[in-house]
Amino acid sequence: MPTRRPLSALDRTFLAGEKRESMMHVGVLAPFSPPVDPPRDFLRSLVEELKRKPKAYPPWTLKLRHPELLASPLQAWIEDDDLDVEYHVRRSALPSPGDERELGILVSRLHSNKIDFHRPPWEVHFIEGLEGGRFAIYFKVHHALVDGFTGMRLLTRSLSTDPSDADTPLFFARPPPERAKRVEAPGEPTFDHLLHLLRDQVGASRDVGRAAMNLLRAARSKERALVAPLQAPRCVLNGKITRNRRFATQRFDVERLRRIARAHGGTLNDAVLALTAAALRRFLLEQDALPREALTTMVPVNIRPKGDTGGGGNEVGAILASLATDIADPRDRLRAIVASTKRAKEQLQGMSKSALMQYGALMLAPMLLSLIPGAAGRVRPAFNVVISNVPGSDSPLYFRGWRAEAIYPVSIPFHGYGLNITVGGYAGELDFGFTGCRDTVPHLQRLAVYAGEAADELEAAMGLRET
Amino acid sequence: MPTRRPLSALDRTFLAGEKRESMMHVGVLAPFSPPVDPPRDFLRSLVEELKRKPKAYPPWTLKLRHPELLASPLQAWIEDDDLDVEYHVRRSALPSPGDERELGILVSRLHSNKIDFHRPPWEVHFIEGLEGGRFAIYFKVHHALVDGFTGMRLLTRSLSTDPSDADTPLFFARPPPERAKRVEAPGEPTFDHLLHLLRDQVGASRDVGRAAMNLLRAARSKERALVAPLQAPRCVLNGKITRNRRFATQRFDVERLRRIARAHGGTLNDAVLALTAAALRRFLLEQDALPREALTTMVPVNIRPKGDTGGGGNEVGAILASLATDIADPRDRLRAIVASTKRAKEQLQGMSKSALMQYGALMLAPMLLSLIPGAAGRVRPAFNVVISNVPGSDSPLYFRGWRAEAIYPVSIPFHGYGLNITVGGYAGELDFGFTGCRDTVPHLQRLAVYAGEAADELEAAMGLRET
Repeated sequence: MPTRRPLSALDRTFLAGEKRESMMHVGVLAPFSPPVDPPRDFLRSLVEELKRKPKAYPPWTLKLRHPELLASPLQAWIEDDDLDVEYHVRRSALPSPGDERELGILVSRLHSNKIDFHRPPWEVHFIEGLEGGRFAIYFKVHHALVDGFTGMRLLTRSLSTDPSDADTPLFFARPPPERAKRVEAPGEPTFDHLLHLLRDQVGASRDVGRAAMNLLRAARSKERALVAPLQAPRCVLNGKITRNRRFATQRFDVERLRRIARAHGGTLNDAVLALTAAALRRFLLEQDALPREALTTMVPVNIRPKGDTGGGGNEVGAILASLATDIADPRDRLRAIVASTKRAKEQLQGMSKSALMQYGALMLAPMLLSLIPGAAGRVRPAFNVVISNVPGSDSPLYFRGWRAEAIYPVSIPFHGYGLNITVGGYAGELDFGFTGCRDTVPHLQRLAVYAGEAADELEAAMGLRET
Repeated sequence: MPTRRPLSALDRTFLAGEKRESMMHVGVLAPFSPPVDPPRDFLRSLVEELKRKPKAYPPWTLKLRHPELLASPLQAWIEDDDLDVEYHVRRSALPSPGDERELGILVSRLHSNKIDFHRPPWEVHFIEGLEGGRFAIYFKVHHALVDGFTGMRLLTRSLSTDPSDADTPLFFARPPPERAKRVEAPGEPTFDHLLHLLRDQVGASRDVGRAAMNLLRAARSKERALVAPLQAPRCVLNGKITRNRRFATQRFDVERLRRIARAHGGTLNDAVLALTAAALRRFLLEQDALPREALTTMVPVNIRPKGDTGGGGNEVGAILASLATDIADPRDRLRAIVASTKRAKEQLQGMSKSALMQYGALMLAPMLLSLIPGAAGRVRPAFNVVISNVPGSDSPLYFRGWRAEAIYPVSIPFHGYGLNITVGGYAGELDFGFTGCRDTVPHLQRLAVYAGEAADELEAAMGLRET
């Protein structure tokens, strides 16, 4: 009997929003370092092996029942009995010199290609030709099948913590884990977790557009006094997007960022905002496009609501925070960011659980609305940039002896939100993935470079290191 | 004042037919051999040079006025004042071992990607990592901007016949030639030339669908007695196509094929049909899908109509010919093909010029109809496979000292015509490009291999060489 799985209203929203310009697939980029004595033609043999013995488990074997009518009310996931492994598993190579720039260009192109809904909506690319005999995996999946949080978890769990494990299967060739009864509380607050929590609110309505509108209306009317969202200034980042993507990466040592944040009473997350703020300020100044008012960002945070005696783990909420891009001095800017996130979290802590949910819904509403055809442009962005995160792994991970150097999330720009910054935690580092619309955010790779230099600048300003 | 150029009804047909599954772009693949002492990082420096001094001339600077509404009656070409050279000129690389198979896979993927109509609709890819220090150019353009005939001519004219010419510009950086007063008669009969001739018949009607239907009706009613088209058997090649492509190549020495053809009183074109027929027969037999009746093909031919005293050059017509795939013996099969094309040409020769045009229209009608949404599937294919050709160059061509080894056309599969074989003549060889729908024609690369082995088999059967 064929597997058949209905779609949640939220997953249907992600399908309904799928257009050539606004593609709803997420991804992961992971470069791997070779073991001491790497086998010759490792990737060639690997891909040949996969083709000889194709094996895949759900959800990787599921495809849409109505690929030609994504928004069909009868939409469902059905089993693909004839999975074409050669289509989903691909080899690619970088042109010389095989550096980070060339890797960024290739991933930008691959991420710009639309998923084929006539097949299970995922692809994995093994990329050779990286400097130093390294290779990279770029993995891509539609958000309606697997969200970024789950995708990252499935990928990292399929890797091994043991460098001598020579038989690590690929993520799609691992049987699925026993289904958890309820969504487990993640260590880190994520967008996808917020979306899961909102699932009940969006409810079983078949009209996803109306559901999202109701959500927005409810949140607005009931909790207006509590919410008081920051007004986001108009900014070039918030235009309509086109069909092409840019992707760039940056890595930071977690302890290093913690030291920077602590010097001003902030958290690791505040340091992430400060680096992003510094990069965005410099980037927009160069284009003579920095708004006079501070840019704002929406960030998922952990919160324990008033009256909750704990035991149920953390609750995930979202806050709007200032990026203080109107402040030139890097230390003053960090101070302003720390003050802004503290204020926002205090406000959140004072809320009841139901108010907190409403608040989360309001924060997400503009994003959900941007998925609905025609709504884009009619709703003014409630914030300028999304800074999200996905949990990775604390330990280094290996694939048949090759060590994952970093695990970068590749995410979704929306109409009105041309830039997405998603941060993954991995083996004592934070791995930043900058995903943007090629036309709305030209020269996006500079943001990654500037974020790296911003850390040096902050350390120098604080006397945390010699200059 | 900005350049503005209206579209012909035919070009509008090609835009109206553009869908994710039926993409109307054509291409060229050309591998290049290195000079004796090739400069290091040749492609890297070349692409850097192009980005530093971007220069492009029409038609390469033209984009659509209404990219969101391709079939708009107000559609026109307008100048793109802000050409993003980095978007149009790209570097890529092959994974190991960099052989013909890997090249075919990469070109298949690139040809499967839809053109971005918000920009001038063309791309050029410089592909490194080919065995033996070689590289390849894959060039792609939408048929509504430049047809395959013109594209090939613009590309080959931009190359040099002089291996020591170190400054060859790229095709898009060459000023356009003076506009010819009328379409010049090509040495070889091509589809695109036929399409040009039909332009008047399609006329100025804004409703391209109705125009094509009128064309078909007129041709059917007036010339039924003359036409008597062969009935094409049902075949797996003639299904609905999907969005992915496969591409494979094969090369033959022209003199070798002439010898094979002459042995049975045939022409070079008959040899092309015989190799294709042998490859298709073996390919379909393997899949247990060979129709009992012979497959048929439509081929453009040169013809001088009755009463035409010449002086105006050749006329281009199209014939339907049998591929004699029902015959097992290779020599008997070639004989049957020669007889079939002779008969078809004699019939054509007996026609008046106007009847000849009607005949050409009828031959093309199913192809034009397949461009019209909804028509696919309702009209039974009038032939099984398109075997087309584009003129190349008799002399070897060079790009800054690198010799073009071959120039393969990459063409368009249509709904109902899942396989296209287009042949380019270049430097004493025939270069075959097999372009197919990935799902309708699985394992398409075998066709290229089988065509190569068919030449050996024919020579052996004829005693033209030792076996």
